[in-house]
Amino acid sequence: MRLFPVVMAGGSGTRFWPLSRKDRPKQFLPLAGDVPLLRATVDRLPPLARLDSTFVVCGPAHAAAVRKLVPRLPRGNVVVEPCARNTAPCVGLAALHVKAREPRGVMAMLPADHHIARPEAFREALAAAAAVAEKGAIATIGIRPHAPETGYGYLKVGARLPAAGKARGALAPHKVERFVEKPDVVTAARYLADGGYLWNSGIFAFRADVILDEIRNAMPVLGEQLQVIERALGTPGYARTLKRVFPDCPSTSIDYGVMEKSHRIAVVPAEFGWSDVGSFAALSEVRPLDDQRNVTSGAAMVIDGKDNVVLGHGRRPVAVVGLDGVVVVDAGDALLVVRRDRAQDVRKAVEELRRRGREDVL
Amino acid sequence: MRLFPVVMAGGSGTRFWPLSRKDRPKQFLPLAGDVPLLRATVDRLPPLARLDSTFVVCGPAHAAAVRKLVPRLPRGNVVVEPCARNTAPCVGLAALHVKAREPRGVMAMLPADHHIARPEAFREALAAAAAVAEKGAIATIGIRPHAPETGYGYLKVGARLPAAGKARGALAPHKVERFVEKPDVVTAARYLADGGYLWNSGIFAFRADVILDEIRNAMPVLGEQLQVIERALGTPGYARTLKRVFPDCPSTSIDYGVMEKSHRIAVVPAEFGWSDVGSFAALSEVRPLDDQRNVTSGAAMVIDGKDNVVLGHGRRPVAVVGLDGVVVVDAGDALLVVRRDRAQDVRKAVEELRRRGREDVL
Repeated sequence: MRLFPVVMAGGSGTRFWPLSRKDRPKQFLPLAGDVPLLRATVDRLPPLARLDSTFVVCGPAHAAAVRKLVPRLPRGNVVVEPCARNTAPCVGLAALHVKAREPRGVMAMLPADHHIARPEAFREALAAAAAVAEKGAIATIGIRPHAPETGYGYLKVGARLPAAGKARGALAPHKVERFVEKPDVVTAARYLADGGYLWNSGIFAFRADVILDEIRNAMPVLGEQLQVIERALGTPGYARTLKRVFPDCPSTSIDYGVMEKSHRIAVVPAEFGWSDVGSFAALSEVRPLDDQRNVTSGAAMVIDGKDNVVLGHGRRPVAVVGLDGVVVVDAGDALLVVRRDRAQDVRKAVEELRRRGREDVL
Repeated sequence: MRLFPVVMAGGSGTRFWPLSRKDRPKQFLPLAGDVPLLRATVDRLPPLARLDSTFVVCGPAHAAAVRKLVPRLPRGNVVVEPCARNTAPCVGLAALHVKAREPRGVMAMLPADHHIARPEAFREALAAAAAVAEKGAIATIGIRPHAPETGYGYLKVGARLPAAGKARGALAPHKVERFVEKPDVVTAARYLADGGYLWNSGIFAFRADVILDEIRNAMPVLGEQLQVIERALGTPGYARTLKRVFPDCPSTSIDYGVMEKSHRIAVVPAEFGWSDVGSFAALSEVRPLDDQRNVTSGAAMVIDGKDNVVLGHGRRPVAVVGLDGVVVVDAGDALLVVRRDRAQDVRKAVEELRRRGREDVL
């Protein structure tokens, strides 16, 4: 089986300001190490998938940056969305491109901004999901939780499905009883204790024909819009058609629009050191810690403090003294200091700077 | 009476790193507003004293900076100590210079790095102290405490002295029963409740002949060293003599070496919005606050936080989110984040940077 990975790189959040900017969103930042998250996402695919079978979907503002970051990616494998319309239209558009290569091609949807500590375990899980997908399932990868995380969606695992291909033992696929929205901490603790819940990783595998079928059933309007685009695909009118049709597509997530309604969902339970790197606070999960559980980079230093994330800029010293649980980020032209457990409130700083007319640092 | 103010600008602390540096110590920083503390100290003297009667004592590394900061100060009024030897030798050296102008001249010792919110009230208090000093007393200004400060020395006030000159009513001079070292918070609260204690401001007034007499009695070695320097004063050999004798002077404070042993001490109780600006935390006392009691400067901003001191650098935004009681200082080439109640531990960052060989930012 030839696998078609589709890296979804259309995100544009503000949770990593001041490192992230309009023209340099999270997936372009080396948050987990030396390599930008997007590049690491592509790099961990071989030998499971080839670069010439790999697609990256992004917005027009970032297409050049994607090509620069993954120079060996064939030009036609960068799929440009005219505008951001959440994941359902993105998946549909990618499915059209895969289908054009191989009508029953198995594709794997991969967020461009996650971190995976153990790439080999990841490839095994993805291969297992792809094997289930080849038989017609909408396969998702569920992560065995190790903490009562409130920042992730959960999947309630159902009955075991007949194993397909490599999907034996620990990676055996199961039915999904239901999708659960981000829970409160009490509910999350219950899920953890229960053992029958997994984190929704947002990593899916399905055949191009199957997902287009599912979209037509669950989201008929989008289904028709995709048919219009498909007829233009490979013709000189493609770009114009896409630009006309895509902005009218419903801005709906694939989870909500399709997955949660589908009867073909299967989940492959897995563990491969996954993190969605949801905020600066998550850097403690994906970066080396000192013996006081501090993350530091550049010329940053922590004196009498623990559980801090302190990111320096070049040789400029950043000294943090007598503080626990803070995030300090020097981005060169802007600085952020935020309590670690409020790292998601970075957006408030972005809003305030916008109000003050400081688009130059946004 | 002609008053000779002597501004003591020999300090070289590290408590204001990263704003303060070896070549730009605290007194050269505009910590309380737009004007460096040293310049503000000189500027608040007229009309009580004239600039040509004002001396500034400093180290050789800072003489040029002093002349630049107070360009109209006569060149001969900058008294350069060959090296730092605490305040007793500094006072003695200044007394020699004043005595050369007027043998019984009344001098006022003024720390260069304090802030005074109400200059007119300050001048009234200093005039009262000078009037007592003219009659032969060692006059000090005691500040009526309004909080149980543990960072200041205290004076136990004794019996009232006969008022001299302008020193009537609230500014009437009293004897000093004793000097008290920086107390713990319980003791400080007791002093505050007692009402008979004042903060030791470190501002003194005395006649040049009187203080030289007192030094001879209490510190005979220093007394002799000063006589050697005095004989060279005004001759071509002055600089050489000073350089030879001064480094051997005892490194003792005038408080400990002379004041606490003197029987001629008088205190003028006063209130003029005084602060010794002891650390970044003290900026909350000397700078305007927003309605959450934050101090901000430059492009600094606080979101969901109170009691912070956030100093920006030029147009570079500094966003502090969800934190209370922190100090954040952007000095351009170095950054500091410290808990407000541990602002004195800035020196630990300085020590660590020295250990790392980062003299370039010290």
